[in-house]
Parts: sequence; C-alpha cells; structure tokens
Amino acid sequence: MQDNLLGSLVDALRCLPGVGPKSAQRMALHLLERDREGGRNLSRVMAEAMERIGRCTRCRDLTERELCSICSDTRRDDGLLCIVESPVDVLAIEQATAFRGRYFVLLGRLSPLDGIGPEELGLDMLEERLDTEPPQELIVATNPTVEGEATAYYLHKMAEARGISVSRIAHGVPLGGELEYIDQTTLAHAFGSRQSFTPGR
Amino acid sequence: MQDNLLGSLVDALRCLPGVGPKSAQRMALHLLERDREGGRNLSRVMAEAMERIGRCTRCRDLTERELCSICSDTRRDDGLLCIVESPVDVLAIEQATAFRGRYFVLLGRLSPLDGIGPEELGLDMLEERLDTEPPQELIVATNPTVEGEATAYYLHKMAEARGISVSRIAHGVPLGGELEYIDQTTLAHAFGSRQSFTPGR
Ligand SMILES: [Zn+2]
Ligand SMILES: [Zn+2]
Repeated sequence: MQDNLLGSLVDALRCLPGVGPKSAQRMALHLLERDREGGRNLSRVMAEAMERIGRCTRCRDLTERELCSICSDTRRDDGLLCIVESPVDVLAIEQATAFRGRYFVLLGRLSPLDGIGPEELGLDMLEERLDTEPPQELIVATNPTVEGEATAYYLHKMAEARGISVSRIAHGVPLGGELEYIDQTTLAHAFGSRQSFTPGR
Repeated sequence: MQDNLLGSLVDALRCLPGVGPKSAQRMALHLLERDREGGRNLSRVMAEAMERIGRCTRCRDLTERELCSICSDTRRDDGLLCIVESPVDVLAIEQATAFRGRYFVLLGRLSPLDGIGPEELGLDMLEERLDTEPPQELIVATNPTVEGEATAYYLHKMAEARGISVSRIAHGVPLGGELEYIDQTTLAHAFGSRQSFTPGR
C-alpha cells in the first residue's frame, strides 16, 4: 500500500489521535468514494489552521487573531479569572458551565524535572496581569494530578500575596458515578474533602 | 466557535466517518498543540489524493494510475478473478488471505429501485473481460445482503453462460463466534448451509 497515494493518505491520517490502521483506511475510502468535497475542504481548512493559529497574546489560548474571542468579548466579567492547563479545558468549561469570566491558559503544569518552570507556563505574564488588573477571584482549574496540585499551590501563593481570593474547582465522585467503580485516589480525596450535610439545601 | 478558524477545523474534521464533535475537538487540539507537521502533511496528502485518485481502467479499484498495483503486477494469477463490491473488500481480502489472483470491483450492488443496474456496476466491462480473457474461476465475494445475493446470482448466470466455474465465499458463524451472540439471519444461514462432518479432515 505504501508505494501509492491511497496508502500515503491512510498513513497520513494516523497522525490523528485515536486513529489506528483500520479506521484510517475506512476514513480514506469514505472520503474518496463518498465525500471528496469534504476531503478537499478539510485539507484547505487544516492547512490554513496549521499556519495561522497561534496564541492569544492575553490568555495564551489558541486563536488566529491577536486576541481570542473570549478576551475580546467586552461583555465578559473581568472580576473572575479561571486558570486552566490547556485549551481543551477552556472548551470543556465553556460547554458545560455558565462561566462568563476570563481565562488564562498555562499550556502545561509545573514539572521541574521536565524543565517546565513558571516562565514556561507564562506565570510571569499572569503575575503582571494580577498586578495591573487584579480580578476579584482567581479560580484554579488545574487537573488533580501531582503536578496540577503543585501548580495550584503556586497559583494560590501568587494570588494570596496580592490579596486576591482563590477558589479551586471541586474534585470528588462524579455525579451518577458509583463508588465501587471510582478509582481509589478519587474516592480517598472525596472522603477526605467531605462537607457537612445540610438536608434540603 | 464557528466564527473562528479552530471552530472551522473542528467542523471540517466531522466529514471523517465516526468522528463526532468531541473527537473532532480532540483531533484539532492535538494537531495544533503537538503535531503541526503531521497536520500539514495530512493536508497536503489529502489534497493530492482527492484530486489524483481515480479508478483503475481494468478492475475499477481506486488508484492514481491508469492500472492499479494489483492489475499491473505480472506475478498474479490471471486464472482467478474475485468480484467484490468495494475497494475496502479488496483491502480486507489482501490483508486476511493469501489470494494471488485478480479483482474486479463493482462499486455497489444491483439495486434496480435505486437505479443501480448492470452498467452502473461495470458489468458490461466485466462481461467483455470474461469473453476476451476468461479466468478459470470466478470467485464471488459480494456481501450476504439481499442486493448482494441478487448481484451474486447475476454474476453466476454471466459466468455460467461462458462455461466459467463460479465459487462463492462461505458465510456462516465467524470462527471464535458464539452461537448465542450471532444474529438470527447468520445463524439460520449457517444452519441451512451445514455440511457433512468428516472428522480429522
Ligand atoms: Zn485570549
Ligand atoms: Zn486494477
């Protein structure tokens, strides 16, 4: 297969996450047999996206403009600043919640052993922002991993030093989740973070 | 999202079969954050494939050349001609079996109600081939659907009229399949097509 164009297309499709040889094959044949226009369009948009999409100069999220659509939206609340690790997290929060504040995207988490320090995460940029336009509340939405926790701790110190209040999104047993199927770390965390129960609240 | 380039990329990725909104998002972010070179390469190969891949003039399989790699391979056996519905079937047979004969790809199956008759399936082309270079054996590998069966019947008549022997790939319970999980039609077919049991064969 690899000495022909169909084989090259199947190979090239494997750069997509979660696409193995079988699905790459199915995708290539689907486009060739039923949707060449879709394939042409995808090729055009992808080339343009790879060249033109960069980072928002204010929040570091992905955008093809100087400022992303959230940063340039004047109706959003400057008093709330949510810190996330990656652009997927922005999308997830935008889709699931009614949050109307601002974001700052770290593009990673503190990991000194991998050479990822505060500068790599743009924390100097964030620090300047907290100094010049301090929000009322910093919402830390890093992931509950060891590095994510270290990052959260660092952010907490940064905000505390400036008298900005800090909150952390809640971690625990997912709604609809059953205890017996939850991983031990989550369950231990949920147990340790238990709150007083107020019936009817 | 749809008023920006990232949103357009997510939308464009949905032309791929089996890719919903969530996985399109994951794919777009993966390429942008971790594999722009892969994305650029995919875009280039896809554009070229959509423009240049056409049909083999001999077997109707997908190829960017006049003759596909199988038709132009002089080491393959002209005596065996396998008829399949689609290019995926060629790939499946090539990958799973040691078949070294030739193929003819119908690109569909007889379906008069949908306006798919013998010409749409290239059966005139196949007929000419059976007349001028008759194989010893015609292997019918159409799918076991109503239309696939009708097509198989038509092919059988065509070959029979020319004294060419015809075989059909076997249908039944898949190896490793368990009877209780097999769909009823397959099981009924497998039961009806039972063969005499020769122990030790
Ligand atoms: Zn921004
Ligand atoms: Zn061919």
